[in-house]
Amino acid sequence: MITLDLCLPDTRYPIHIGRGLLDDAQLILPHLPQRKVAIVTNATVAPLYLERLQRGLEEAGVSVLPIVLPDGEVYKTWDTLNLIFDALLSSRAERKTTLIALGGGVIGDMTGFAAACYQRGAPFIQVPTTLLAQVDSSVGGKTAINHPKGKNMIGAFYQPRAVIADMTLLDTLPQRELSAGLAEVIKYGLLGDVDFLTWLEDNMAALRARDYDALAYAVRRSCEMKAEIVVQDEKETGVRALLNLGHTFGHAIEAGLGFGTWLHGEAVGAGMVLAAALSHELGWIDEAALQRAVRLIGAAGLPTQAPDLGLEAWLEHMSHDKKVESGKLRFVLLKRLGEAAIVEGVDAAALERVLTGPYIQRAD
Amino acid sequence: MITLDLCLPDTRYPIHIGRGLLDDAQLILPHLPQRKVAIVTNATVAPLYLERLQRGLEEAGVSVLPIVLPDGEVYKTWDTLNLIFDALLSSRAERKTTLIALGGGVIGDMTGFAAACYQRGAPFIQVPTTLLAQVDSSVGGKTAINHPKGKNMIGAFYQPRAVIADMTLLDTLPQRELSAGLAEVIKYGLLGDVDFLTWLEDNMAALRARDYDALAYAVRRSCEMKAEIVVQDEKETGVRALLNLGHTFGHAIEAGLGFGTWLHGEAVGAGMVLAAALSHELGWIDEAALQRAVRLIGAAGLPTQAPDLGLEAWLEHMSHDKKVESGKLRFVLLKRLGEAAIVEGVDAAALERVLTGPYIQRAD
Repeated sequence: MITLDLCLPDTRYPIHIGRGLLDDAQLILPHLPQRKVAIVTNATVAPLYLERLQRGLEEAGVSVLPIVLPDGEVYKTWDTLNLIFDALLSSRAERKTTLIALGGGVIGDMTGFAAACYQRGAPFIQVPTTLLAQVDSSVGGKTAINHPKGKNMIGAFYQPRAVIADMTLLDTLPQRELSAGLAEVIKYGLLGDVDFLTWLEDNMAALRARDYDALAYAVRRSCEMKAEIVVQDEKETGVRALLNLGHTFGHAIEAGLGFGTWLHGEAVGAGMVLAAALSHELGWIDEAALQRAVRLIGAAGLPTQAPDLGLEAWLEHMSHDKKVESGKLRFVLLKRLGEAAIVEGVDAAALERVLTGPYIQRAD
Repeated sequence: MITLDLCLPDTRYPIHIGRGLLDDAQLILPHLPQRKVAIVTNATVAPLYLERLQRGLEEAGVSVLPIVLPDGEVYKTWDTLNLIFDALLSSRAERKTTLIALGGGVIGDMTGFAAACYQRGAPFIQVPTTLLAQVDSSVGGKTAINHPKGKNMIGAFYQPRAVIADMTLLDTLPQRELSAGLAEVIKYGLLGDVDFLTWLEDNMAALRARDYDALAYAVRRSCEMKAEIVVQDEKETGVRALLNLGHTFGHAIEAGLGFGTWLHGEAVGAGMVLAAALSHELGWIDEAALQRAVRLIGAAGLPTQAPDLGLEAWLEHMSHDKKVESGKLRFVLLKRLGEAAIVEGVDAAALERVLTGPYIQRAD
């Protein structure tokens, strides 16, 4: 096991990365202000991992309330969030009861937001069970639910007390979800570390074969980079927006197709292709660099073409992006491989060429 | 106009107290990161004050989105909160759009919570239109909505950028609401300043006659005391709970009768009588002190008897209090007039005597 420390102005917390961590209650106990927790998970993860986590805690004298939600991005709503509140209030959970998120990004985001709001703030711990959650959504304190008019529109910045990333939990992850997680891993290479990008090209086969060492390195390097950026800008007033590479296009794909049709990571994969293509259109990266990005995204098992939403729908969905300022779209684009920048006032013709170009699926 | 400064670790903001402040857009402009605001108000306040506030801002070049909600504590729910989100998203409000709460405690709490959650945090400003909101709920950053199982159970600590308390807005406040606000004013005297309590006894008639100078002094002294406590303990891990004097009983009254039957301030008034009676039962204050508290609460036009909920219902409702720790009720009680303390493990027999005693309304 290795442990990274995320030090923020008001708090610091460990990110534990290793194997078999789910059974080690000692990683959780120091963070509990009282020996009572609620484990929030979903109907897919519960049969696989709930009992192991619950037993370890109960053997250590912790009272456990399991809360099992339906599985899927379509359930990342207020109604589902309210199931958590109902369960907490019915069992008289207090403001010092710790919420443990056992699941992927949807569970982590909803549990974190529930913790942020329950009695104005209860402690919480992330136990991510998907690669995407391990490398990205469990770290950094972004929590949210979706609104019919936009993804993650209602939420809070609220940090966990600890993140526990157990590589062996990825054994049961469907291949499609593994690829979705790799999208966020590739993102870190593209936006900030060309050496890591090269490492990913060399190790993509090992990652997709779930080699624990390769996965642990990818998770570690991703979390290190994320931590570096979050420390500089916890509330996303500036540099943190770089972590949104591929996400402006990606969120539009998710909203345009209906949340849950494509996985978030798949939308981000195709979104990064569009971001790279737009960077190329603007003359910032050359064709070879664009192709290298597209190839790596494809090698991860991700789509390299976005669905054809139609120009108007693209612009409409992107206009709900949280990065919009004074009505202007802002994109995260590539200055070169390994360096991203936030760009406002992108040339409309270049954007239109990308949204009608070769990285958009043709209907025929 | 006088201005208090509330300085917290992460932020500081002014509390302006005076007359005719509603028309002075200069008090708001310095706090707007962009010239776009949403004014959240209710159907009662809108016809009285919305146009004045809106016009002043529009004349200063600010684009204004008015959001008018139904009026009343029963609407302090997720469904109403969602009306705010719908309006913000439909009009493409951004994360730098400022929300202005124009109304009483319900509007302030909901607008603040909406601002806390909208795109993970938009700026907001409080323009309280009731005495209760001016002396208490608009200051200190507590925001929330109710849940069927408990008041203010879902919320956030989220500070406004400014608070603007205009005494002349109290002209249109119904007498019953003025009394409800005085409950929180009396609270400050009881919990921390016996000289202020004496001042209140001497000036209760002037306050109820809406003498601007008397009101301004009461608002100022209340905000000063609240600010002092909030600065010590923004997130209520300790001393801030003192501000809950009368609220454990009061919340049980509101929940027991159904939210909105009694005004919050009325419930706090009767709740403070019960807290004083319990303090007397425990031998901390003598009969004369208890009578002095009861008399002042009555003089403010507030109920000095609580409804007869029945012992079981009292205990059930109080068990949902946010101050409960490890299953134990905690009360804020009076060591003497002008000094309160947080007490755990109150003698059950003493509590029962209070909840079946002379300060409970008899059914006959």
